[in-house]
Amino acid sequence: MTAATPRRRGRPSRTDAQDTPAARDRILAAAREEFAERGFEKTSMRAIAKAADVDSALVHHYFGTKEQVFEASIEVAIGPLLSAPGSVGEGPLDGVGERLARFFFGVWENPATRKALLAIVRSAVNNETAAGVFRRLISAQLLRRVALQLNLPDAELRAELAAAQLVGIAMLRYVIKVEPLASADPEQIINRVAPVIQSHLTAP
Amino acid sequence: MTAATPRRRGRPSRTDAQDTPAARDRILAAAREEFAERGFEKTSMRAIAKAADVDSALVHHYFGTKEQVFEASIEVAIGPLLSAPGSVGEGPLDGVGERLARFFFGVWENPATRKALLAIVRSAVNNETAAGVFRRLISAQLLRRVALQLNLPDAELRAELAAAQLVGIAMLRYVIKVEPLASADPEQIINRVAPVIQSHLTAP
Repeated sequence: MTAATPRRRGRPSRTDAQDTPAARDRILAAAREEFAERGFEKTSMRAIAKAADVDSALVHHYFGTKEQVFEASIEVAIGPLLSAPGSVGEGPLDGVGERLARFFFGVWENPATRKALLAIVRSAVNNETAAGVFRRLISAQLLRRVALQLNLPDAELRAELAAAQLVGIAMLRYVIKVEPLASADPEQIINRVAPVIQSHLTAP
Repeated sequence: MTAATPRRRGRPSRTDAQDTPAARDRILAAAREEFAERGFEKTSMRAIAKAADVDSALVHHYFGTKEQVFEASIEVAIGPLLSAPGSVGEGPLDGVGERLARFFFGVWENPATRKALLAIVRSAVNNETAAGVFRRLISAQLLRRVALQLNLPDAELRAELAAAQLVGIAMLRYVIKVEPLASADPEQIINRVAPVIQSHLTAP
């Protein structure tokens, strides 16, 4: 054999051309839609790529596995819950119950974020991989922060019982849609739930 | 044509032979297993019949549609929650929080009933038909009873917020399995949750 033939040159491949931050965001948005619609198991990398109008290769390039796309699309949805004003991390402790409840409904009442959260719930309930991703995010982010903030030996259990009250409301109001909870005014629910969250987190 | 030929006689059909209360219970148990394992959508009447070792025709004969098998298998699981000692329906109102919490963990800590409840959660989260069945049972049974017992104008919303605390704990402890909640001693959780349930139901 003689010298290797030079590699064909021409237009950059479709993947190169699409390798932009905007494409990354588009993939995450498409992933949220797909996971929300179909759940973790039935969603394929190919379907996400198609919905985002990019090559499958680009999805792999940015995120690796389907599990990692899922984790990234969840982080985008959960991130604001953890760092925004109104979360446990900011403001005086004695208002944390109301701030958390208010922020929780702000996120769920917004149709775009609700979609991401429904994706998490639907996937985590039916798939062990997705549940593992959810567990890891809760432990690594939510619980560690709350524990630091509360500075109590049982801070993590407290945080989880408070979270359980909100998760249960999300299930009955947004997923199962049981009346009268499904149509109740968010302010009315916040008024009733804020003291419960507060008490879970800070009561002696 | 002359007189009709007599119909062939012989052994009763397999369906007739199996038409017993025991077969009905076996079908319900098999349905719970299948729904818990696969969720509502992926479970077929044929698979339930096979698992119960009866003809599909018998499943249709007893229950009609898949939706109706699902409803019956849920009722078997939820029934005790509503009528057993410890439910809202019996005992003084000021102990109802602890009674409900204690009964809830009794049911979830029992591997057999846990399976039925997981079937409900998995199916209702992912399928609108299953969610509708769940909604109907909650409205028709749980809420009506609690409303009668509490005799307050907002009794149903109170009952749902109390239920939400328990549903959320079930999600995080038994479905997602987030630590430390997943391994916490049930007594410890009951101690913390009973006052919350009580307050949702009876606080002014």
